[in-house]
Amino acid sequence: MPFKTGEQYRERLDRLQHNVWFRGEPVTGNITEHLAFRGLVSFQASLYDMQNDKAYQEKLTFTSEATGDLVGLSFLQPKTKKDLAKRREMMRLWADYHHGFLGRSPDYMNTSIMAFYSASDLLSELDPQYSDNLKKYFEYCREHDITLSHAFIQPQASRYVNINDGVEENLAAKVVDQNKDGIVVTGAFLMATQGVTAEEIFVFPPVSTLLPETDSPYTFVFAVPNNLPGLKFICRESLVQGDSAFDFPLSSKYEEMDTLVIFDQVLVPWDRVFLYGHEDLAHRFVIESGFHAHVSHQLLCKNIAKTEFLLGTIEYMVETSGMSNYPHVREKIAEIIVGLETLKSMLIAAEMNAKIDKFGSMVPSKNTILAANVLYPELYPRIIEIIQLLGGSSLVMIPSEKDFESDIAPYLNKYLKGMQSDAKEKVKLFRLAWEISAGSFGGRETLYERFFFGNKSSITSRLYEGYMGREKYIQKVKHFLQG
Amino acid sequence: MPFKTGEQYRERLDRLQHNVWFRGEPVTGNITEHLAFRGLVSFQASLYDMQNDKAYQEKLTFTSEATGDLVGLSFLQPKTKKDLAKRREMMRLWADYHHGFLGRSPDYMNTSIMAFYSASDLLSELDPQYSDNLKKYFEYCREHDITLSHAFIQPQASRYVNINDGVEENLAAKVVDQNKDGIVVTGAFLMATQGVTAEEIFVFPPVSTLLPETDSPYTFVFAVPNNLPGLKFICRESLVQGDSAFDFPLSSKYEEMDTLVIFDQVLVPWDRVFLYGHEDLAHRFVIESGFHAHVSHQLLCKNIAKTEFLLGTIEYMVETSGMSNYPHVREKIAEIIVGLETLKSMLIAAEMNAKIDKFGSMVPSKNTILAANVLYPELYPRIIEIIQLLGGSSLVMIPSEKDFESDIAPYLNKYLKGMQSDAKEKVKLFRLAWEISAGSFGGRETLYERFFFGNKSSITSRLYEGYMGREKYIQKVKHFLQG
Amino acid sequence: MPFKTGEQYRERLDRLQHNVWFRGEPVTGNITEHLAFRGLVSFQASLYDMQNDKAYQEKLTFTSEATGDLVGLSFLQPKTKKDLAKRREMMRLWADYHHGFLGRSPDYMNTSIMAFYSASDLLSELDPQYSDNLKKYFEYCREHDITLSHAFIQPQASRYVNINDGVEENLAAKVVDQNKDGIVVTGAFLMATQGVTAEEIFVFPPVSTLLPETDSPYTFVFAVPNNLPGLKFICRESLVQGDSAFDFPLSSKYEEMDTLVIFDQVLVPWDRVFLYGHEDLAHRFVIESGFHAHVSHQLLCKNIAKTEFLLGTIEYMVETSGMSNYPHVREKIAEIIVGLETLKSMLIAAEMNAKIDKFGSMVPSKNTILAANVLYPELYPRIIEIIQLLGGSSLVMIPSEKDFESDIAPYLNKYLKGMQSDAKEKVKLFRLAWEISAGSFGGRETLYERFFFGNKSSITSRLYEGYMGREKYIQKVKHFLQG
Amino acid sequence: MPFKTGEQYRERLDRLQHNVWFRGEPVTGNITEHLAFRGLVSFQASLYDMQNDKAYQEKLTFTSEATGDLVGLSFLQPKTKKDLAKRREMMRLWADYHHGFLGRSPDYMNTSIMAFYSASDLLSELDPQYSDNLKKYFEYCREHDITLSHAFIQPQASRYVNINDGVEENLAAKVVDQNKDGIVVTGAFLMATQGVTAEEIFVFPPVSTLLPETDSPYTFVFAVPNNLPGLKFICRESLVQGDSAFDFPLSSKYEEMDTLVIFDQVLVPWDRVFLYGHEDLAHRFVIESGFHAHVSHQLLCKNIAKTEFLLGTIEYMVETSGMSNYPHVREKIAEIIVGLETLKSMLIAAEMNAKIDKFGSMVPSKNTILAANVLYPELYPRIIEIIQLLGGSSLVMIPSEKDFESDIAPYLNKYLKGMQSDAKEKVKLFRLAWEISAGSFGGRETLYERFFFGNKSSITSRLYEGYMGREKYIQKVKHFLQG
Repeated sequence: MPFKTGEQYRERLDRLQHNVWFRGEPVTGNITEHLAFRGLVSFQASLYDMQNDKAYQEKLTFTSEATGDLVGLSFLQPKTKKDLAKRREMMRLWADYHHGFLGRSPDYMNTSIMAFYSASDLLSELDPQYSDNLKKYFEYCREHDITLSHAFIQPQASRYVNINDGVEENLAAKVVDQNKDGIVVTGAFLMATQGVTAEEIFVFPPVSTLLPETDSPYTFVFAVPNNLPGLKFICRESLVQGDSAFDFPLSSKYEEMDTLVIFDQVLVPWDRVFLYGHEDLAHRFVIESGFHAHVSHQLLCKNIAKTEFLLGTIEYMVETSGMSNYPHVREKIAEIIVGLETLKSMLIAAEMNAKIDKFGSMVPSKNTILAANVLYPELYPRIIEIIQLLGGSSLVMIPSEKDFESDIAPYLNKYLKGMQSDAKEKVKLFRLAWEISAGSFGGRETLYERFFFGNKSSITSRLYEGYMGREKYIQKVKHFLQG
Repeated sequence: MPFKTGEQYRERLDRLQHNVWFRGEPVTGNITEHLAFRGLVSFQASLYDMQNDKAYQEKLTFTSEATGDLVGLSFLQPKTKKDLAKRREMMRLWADYHHGFLGRSPDYMNTSIMAFYSASDLLSELDPQYSDNLKKYFEYCREHDITLSHAFIQPQASRYVNINDGVEENLAAKVVDQNKDGIVVTGAFLMATQGVTAEEIFVFPPVSTLLPETDSPYTFVFAVPNNLPGLKFICRESLVQGDSAFDFPLSSKYEEMDTLVIFDQVLVPWDRVFLYGHEDLAHRFVIESGFHAHVSHQLLCKNIAKTEFLLGTIEYMVETSGMSNYPHVREKIAEIIVGLETLKSMLIAAEMNAKIDKFGSMVPSKNTILAANVLYPELYPRIIEIIQLLGGSSLVMIPSEKDFESDIAPYLNKYLKGMQSDAKEKVKLFRLAWEISAGSFGGRETLYERFFFGNKSSITSRLYEGYMGREKYIQKVKHFLQG
Repeated sequence: MPFKTGEQYRERLDRLQHNVWFRGEPVTGNITEHLAFRGLVSFQASLYDMQNDKAYQEKLTFTSEATGDLVGLSFLQPKTKKDLAKRREMMRLWADYHHGFLGRSPDYMNTSIMAFYSASDLLSELDPQYSDNLKKYFEYCREHDITLSHAFIQPQASRYVNINDGVEENLAAKVVDQNKDGIVVTGAFLMATQGVTAEEIFVFPPVSTLLPETDSPYTFVFAVPNNLPGLKFICRESLVQGDSAFDFPLSSKYEEMDTLVIFDQVLVPWDRVFLYGHEDLAHRFVIESGFHAHVSHQLLCKNIAKTEFLLGTIEYMVETSGMSNYPHVREKIAEIIVGLETLKSMLIAAEMNAKIDKFGSMVPSKNTILAANVLYPELYPRIIEIIQLLGGSSLVMIPSEKDFESDIAPYLNKYLKGMQSDAKEKVKLFRLAWEISAGSFGGRETLYERFFFGNKSSITSRLYEGYMGREKYIQKVKHFLQG
Repeated sequence: MPFKTGEQYRERLDRLQHNVWFRGEPVTGNITEHLAFRGLVSFQASLYDMQNDKAYQEKLTFTSEATGDLVGLSFLQPKTKKDLAKRREMMRLWADYHHGFLGRSPDYMNTSIMAFYSASDLLSELDPQYSDNLKKYFEYCREHDITLSHAFIQPQASRYVNINDGVEENLAAKVVDQNKDGIVVTGAFLMATQGVTAEEIFVFPPVSTLLPETDSPYTFVFAVPNNLPGLKFICRESLVQGDSAFDFPLSSKYEEMDTLVIFDQVLVPWDRVFLYGHEDLAHRFVIESGFHAHVSHQLLCKNIAKTEFLLGTIEYMVETSGMSNYPHVREKIAEIIVGLETLKSMLIAAEMNAKIDKFGSMVPSKNTILAANVLYPELYPRIIEIIQLLGGSSLVMIPSEKDFESDIAPYLNKYLKGMQSDAKEKVKLFRLAWEISAGSFGGRETLYERFFFGNKSSITSRLYEGYMGREKYIQKVKHFLQG
């Protein structure tokens, strides 16, 4: 069976009937029709449809060796630099289509699971069955184009589980029982983005917070369908305020709902368990799989598309307002250009300096690509700040689509026109700028980018610890001083 | 007639029947009942009611010499440092009540018009009638506790009026005719905050953008009731999403609607015209009245209250999450403490170094108080950033009041509790933090604080140009170098 | 015996014959004539002479109750706000004279020892003799106008003494013996600023690094004359490059040598021991004495004088180069003005909010004054950066005094003149700007200001931990949320 | 004649007998023996010697088509990406040897003149003789391995020449006469770095400051030997304080003297004049030659080498002090790593996206390489700040080489040792860190890096104006909004 179309995506979602809670009520109707989800689902369906579009198919799919079917290219395990380039082209295509606003476009999780799959042999150290389970699950996802979400952050009060055992022990998700059919898991995860709009959920442990132990009920890697009994998805407030693309150009399309995922005595079947109980191996599994490098490759493609879109938005605002000759405007735009050129250069360099790992995967250079991860959580909020600084009060005083259809429209047309644009075009642009830089959709985006791969301490430590070259540079200085 | 009560405020608003447009429709019902305005109106009514509350009355009012009535203390022209202290106590009382979230609490415009009134003699240079008009209007406002909004920013495409006369001339607001009854004004103003929820509007020119001319149809100072024929208020999108104080702790109370004000052949009666046609005098009037210093005194009180509230919010978050021992947390909070202590010290110093001006007003030290204006547009966004950095993903995954009343509540109670608080309390706190730091109400607040008194170039020039002491410091260095 | 004159200062220094090492050689001649020290000594002598100058004497001295003599006002224990104001006037007078470039002008240590003296009763908890010793020593210093340095930072490799006892134990300064005459101390201290140009040295423990113990050989407070046997002062590189005030306007006057102080079996007489062995009391002694608040009061006076001088330098540069109309120049200067106004406001507020402590001292408000300590280590380097940014390459290409006396002078006079100054005046100014912002004297100043009161973590923790008001602000938010 | 050796470099310098002024005296002896120059000359000689070293020769030279001799590779006009790679390898080799501390290593000017040479045909528009002169001069430089300096900044008071003609006219360098032998130039240039230690000087106009005119005595491009009559080099203060590599590890080797160059009626022979009088062409010549891109390629190589060295220095300090586990330390080092990875990625990307220009040169991507130029003036000072923050007071208290040879040495050995190094090694390292981050050599370096390619406004405008892609990004947004 080949890649999925948009229509199939919608059908499977509605058929799923998973347990979703929204504003204190269980969602009973179709996910694809609910105001909070329909915009995103429609948009995501069009991503899947691109795979079926002759204009894009060659770049978006490859022929599965297992079945001869065309499958999504983000499932491809890269073994050469050319594979990396193919993956990048695929990911840029989708990212350019969603302009980087989907943090969880399907290639993200496809890449994650590909990374884990490529390291599945490592699991044999614990039990060959685990390795086998993961390989089969990966093939299942690839051949059925499964839409996945994932979960790994535990509720905050439980992150000190090893420090305050007494207090927190009952909060952290853990295996409360196991039997011949599988392990029984109880607990909660913050926050499965697109949990509602995916088919299955992949769960793996946070690498950095737990102490190495050989046997822990808190350590597991598994995947389950979203409609398994005992599984509940609790939505946060929806940021969708309407379907109008004029009034809500971003949230009407790109609002990826975050969910609190509850596991209440969920039985995870053994064939869906990929690792259980061995913290040290779980840790090595995440690190050695090249997970961070592979996923950061996808992330970098997304961030470049997003930065291009934001730069375009700002340049358009500047054009509309005739501000391009002010030195302070140029300095601010130059900052964004420097950021964009940095990201693009890093993408090139990460591929050029890629290395084959012990599993045969061609892994983008960690030195470079993890540096990009440190950069973006500060670059993105700065771009947002620049939009605010250049937009000023014009961002605030923006009427709606209906105003332009009313008797009051002539006044708007007269008084809100730009230097080089009519009022409606200008207002449309500034509504976009508002949503990015001051609306609640934009607020969530900023938080999301700040913490995508952890807080500053985590991402800098990840870069610092794995950094290749340190010793060479120290030797340079020692040699200089001896010399 | 004395100060106004909340009830009187509501009655007058509903009686006004001014021309208000909201989402493409004229507002026909009562302002005080409309979802977009009712929260703010109720809250503001309670501010007026405080004047009638024995616990506060002495601090909030003074006896009018004209009538013997108690009138609002923010109308008091300060003539001594003690008067300044009284004014400060009054303004802190209201600011502490609205926690600094009202940028246009009534004392703001009361203070503005008091500043202009105190310099009314200057207008006699042009025509003694203007001076007289302003004095009478001020007394009218003070004795009737009139709620004012104001307007002075012109639509952006028209700010180059003197540069591109041909293109823009028909955009800038101007006097299109005059007759025995008054001047006829056509044009638009961005953006009268609280235009809808005020009784009258005060219009004065932007000081910095126009070239000195002695006779200009673009230069005028006047005030009119909001329901004058030809006057229209067009609302931006409302940021009120509901009445629930749990879900929307800030926007349900403090959302001050901004409006585009249209003057379409509005006849402004002569007795409401305070200056017309003389740019140079208009400029001197704004500068020499001490307007910026007096209003900044009010502003500083507001900003201190807001900063205290934000610091409390952050400390509460830190308490709830048990993070107070991390050095990076302490460093971030220390930044806010330094900011708060700075504002408080400046308030003290500005009063202590106040000077009597030529009109007999005791004016807070400009050196200090205009420095505070430069500081806050950078301090406020940094505080917001710190909330984001300390809140992290906990800011995103916040359920609503209804979730806590539903069958799903037990899960929330279990998994979302804090280190020292139950889940509901913690979620309530984090909804507040969300609204400030990532929701659209907060987005507008950030824009508002960034540009309250103009862009960076304007506010730094205002400080730079009026700075006393420059020559002394240069002499110090010259003296040192001479040896 | 009353305050000291400059001449007495010089005589006592030369008579001292302490063991000073400079560039691998013991200094054998007079300190007051050595290139590395003579500039500073002459300048400091003039500070002492001001006490004898009728124009300043009233502000710089007060009548000792013990002797009826006039003694230095920085020895005055403040008991009223008026005392604080007197102290401030005294400290500003000296600071304005040295333009804030002396980090260790004598009032600094006079204030330190006054703070400790005022809390001497606390030492009676351990032994009344300690309290008595400190009182007598303080009186001795006050009545003889003793010039003190102090030492408390231990060499870096030993700061983990409690962690790596095995490795470091022999590095930390400690009492190696005690007998009827006193305690015998061996160890080293980084870095006694002005160690060479002081008469005595006061030693107290670093508050933050040691664990509470009741009996530790590492804990002591004492003072000794600089020429005690076994005491050695090792100088760092001198930053004095010549006596020319044209070429080296700052280093020729203000270079305060830092020294590594070696205690090699130094016998400290019992009457000079103020505390020994009790870590917890040592900790309380430093905290409860108000040491940080009193010393920060002096520091703030110094920092204001320095900031005024730097602002004057920059405004002079701007005047000379005709740059005052560029918005980016104004923004940068406005930053410094905001900083200066902040410091000045904090000085006023810290005195106005001062409180009497349990020892009867009037202590400046810690909330405010410790905030100023957090501010300056970031403000100062930013000012230096602004000098670099505004000075640009003009800072680099600066000839020397001799060039202006040579045949090449006409070219300099022609080509290096400023917009409003001749070449020699401009070069003189830019040599000053160079020394502050790029020369080695300035480099040491920047390091000094960054770390004056500890690293960022220490100074923010000091502010955070003692901050009054936290609970009130949290309550505000709780009250708001309850509704 | 082939490339030059170190010995030849020294010989030619001493033979030159150019007019050099140092501290008010003409330099009469050999440049190569003067304390202010000998360190740099020796070091630079060793760069030339590398060309004669079989280990490096292949990478540092190529065979001249004109003579069949081996000549310096930085003279190679790149026509393919492979040529760019060769040039980069050459430039990295030298940069790694001088660790980026030579801003004017010979490849810098070789690259500049190569860029101009490659566009020499453009000069034919004015006069074919100019084009011919430049070609011949370039060949002369290449075949004789001439060491060049250059000058283009005019004294600051003259930069407004077109605005304030009356005042400044006599200050700006200009052609005061012309005759059959050449043009006669009078004026001054700030600041020819390595003017003293070069053989010839290349002069071209500042691109950005002059108004387009077709005939201007202020516009010229020419080159002359340093010993032409009427040419004088006035040195700034020397930053060399001694020859000891222990005490002054950087300034003893890398101090590149800056000079004020005086032209007093200098006759420039016609065959050395490449352009005269035509401002518009001069402007196009600099822009269209790809000068900025080619030189930035060299600059980027230098900046990478420098950043690697600084990173090594910091990591070595961290190793020595055992600080690598502190989060704030890791965050700071991660910042530098991100900066380094950015520069390295940009170097790769600039070559990969290089394009052939109309003169047949392969030009590195301006989008990327001019972005690197905007980045470094902020990255470098931040690295310096990090050295200060991590070094703290340990940077200040550093003894000298002689101290370690004296009787006081045992104390130093005991008390100044590091966690993993002996005292002498640690002090050596910290003297290096001092010189970079606080000494006057480092101060000049910071100024140099901040302004290498102009102030912020210039370098951001250069990037902004030439940025390719702007329209594409705006179209993206327009398409999205229409969509």
